[in-house]
Amino acid sequence: MTARDPIPPTIRWRDGRVVLVDQRRLPGELVEVSAASVGELCDLIRSLAVRGAPALGAAGALGVALAHHRGEDLDAAAADLVATRPTAVNLRWGVERARAAADPLAEAEALIAEDIAANRAIGAHGAGLVEPGARALTHCNAGALATCGYGTAVGVLRSAHDAGSLAHVWVGETRPVLQGSRLTAWELGRLGIPHTLVPDVAAASLFAAGDVDLVVVGADRIAADGSVANKVGTYGLAVLARHHGVPFYVAAPRSTFDPSTPSGAAITIEERAAEEVTHLGGVAVAPEGVAVRNPAFDVTPPDLVTAYISEAGVVREARSLATDPE
Amino acid sequence: MTARDPIPPTIRWRDGRVVLVDQRRLPGELVEVSAASVGELCDLIRSLAVRGAPALGAAGALGVALAHHRGEDLDAAAADLVATRPTAVNLRWGVERARAAADPLAEAEALIAEDIAANRAIGAHGAGLVEPGARALTHCNAGALATCGYGTAVGVLRSAHDAGSLAHVWVGETRPVLQGSRLTAWELGRLGIPHTLVPDVAAASLFAAGDVDLVVVGADRIAADGSVANKVGTYGLAVLARHHGVPFYVAAPRSTFDPSTPSGAAITIEERAAEEVTHLGGVAVAPEGVAVRNPAFDVTPPDLVTAYISEAGVVREARSLATDPE
Repeated sequence: MTARDPIPPTIRWRDGRVVLVDQRRLPGELVEVSAASVGELCDLIRSLAVRGAPALGAAGALGVALAHHRGEDLDAAAADLVATRPTAVNLRWGVERARAAADPLAEAEALIAEDIAANRAIGAHGAGLVEPGARALTHCNAGALATCGYGTAVGVLRSAHDAGSLAHVWVGETRPVLQGSRLTAWELGRLGIPHTLVPDVAAASLFAAGDVDLVVVGADRIAADGSVANKVGTYGLAVLARHHGVPFYVAAPRSTFDPSTPSGAAITIEERAAEEVTHLGGVAVAPEGVAVRNPAFDVTPPDLVTAYISEAGVVREARSLATDPE
Repeated sequence: MTARDPIPPTIRWRDGRVVLVDQRRLPGELVEVSAASVGELCDLIRSLAVRGAPALGAAGALGVALAHHRGEDLDAAAADLVATRPTAVNLRWGVERARAAADPLAEAEALIAEDIAANRAIGAHGAGLVEPGARALTHCNAGALATCGYGTAVGVLRSAHDAGSLAHVWVGETRPVLQGSRLTAWELGRLGIPHTLVPDVAAASLFAAGDVDLVVVGADRIAADGSVANKVGTYGLAVLARHHGVPFYVAAPRSTFDPSTPSGAAITIEERAAEEVTHLGGVAVAPEGVAVRNPAFDVTPPDLVTAYISEAGVVREARSLATDPE
């Protein structure tokens, strides 16, 4: 990321603290918030001040570095961090990577640099899939803010825009937390990429009208069979893409691939608070006490995925995402 | 509707005014609002104090009755009323029916009584399609509040519940205006029908889990070829239902069938204000000035509709909805 990057670093270490862009306050305000303890960092993760699988990997690693810096028990810190968000495999991966290192902070900083490099490679590989004049649909936020920088799905869009091939981006608002409205539309605006925000329910008629040429989303975990856990709503878009003959791409670093999870059925899906659905800005929009189902993620089976875009290239089979001995 | 009906009349005439349940204030408060002029009634229609195709038919007829009562120009009143919501064919139908009658008020009151009777018939016919233990998914509000009483899609659920066959209802919240959260969940609660509210984006994973046995929705207009204009999000549910082998039913009175609209492409789709998407309770949730697409409706093609449920019975072909000379 150069000094000219219009989007500031998502998460970093500064003066004994973990400092991050407070994503709860976007798009209204661009402000940073920091954690001086693992408990504070866990609160920031749970409240979605930082979110997105690759960014959570960095948060996990920096959390271990924070415990190490304070001379605290690293096993307890690791357990607390991993428990905050059960679906993102990168969180556990980042925690374990820092936990196994002699210098957790150096390891966390290496992880961040590698993630940014991986995202730039994902962007370059994915841009080759975008035909001139293409209109892409994305969901949630798999942008710079979801990663350590540049973004995965948004990285692909960004690279394709730089290459001159991308005409337009449809941004699904992504109920209930509105990461599309709040974060992706904000990033695309700062990047100067033409885009239009739509309610998630309006995506289907965009497909029907022939206005979507490709779908690009991120991933929170990719199982051994290629099933993709990603923000709730992703699976419905994959079904729509298949029904309309539109390619559906998953852009994610290889750290998102989890060979220890055999299939989609084995992925734990985080259930979030009912209030995300029943209240808007503190005001009730549903009857008091109504039963709510509010899964944060869903699972897209591999037969609906046209290709996976990782730092290693574009592959049809998820098993190609496994990190080879190098 | 008996005195024991847990849901009050949606719209009616009282003392020279059109009185209606103010649906903007549900589920927080059950209050009525009234219009003493056609202009006031048009404002109430545009701001969604009253909505739902069959209820708009009554609003149109009562609007003409109001102009007649005040000795105003009926053609001007009719034009103003029809212009408020371009997609719902029932609105125009109600206006024209009252306009053609010697006594517009008597005609409007006949229309209301007929609509309630039609909905009870729709419920009885539709209940026969609900297998014991079935879990139904519905979208938006096609309940008592969308009609003159009892409801169309919710009427089917209500009749099936009374018959003991319906196990559960999944209610999609229906962004951006949240008619599912605010109205359908409220109606089902008052009716004692077990239900769970879900973000629209979570519907796909309910299908994938095998937790949806049928989909029942209403309609704002059914074209001659059987294409169904209904609340945005309906088409996506129809695609999901087809992908998962789940029946998809459209429940609507025959007044919703418009043989003068040849196909889905000929249906005008109302585009609503961007603020419905960019703001929640007055607070911006998207970057200032972002481009927004906010269609109120979408179109489901006839090949995705398992059957139409009208007051005349259950039919596979929309042309059977045409009113026969009797």
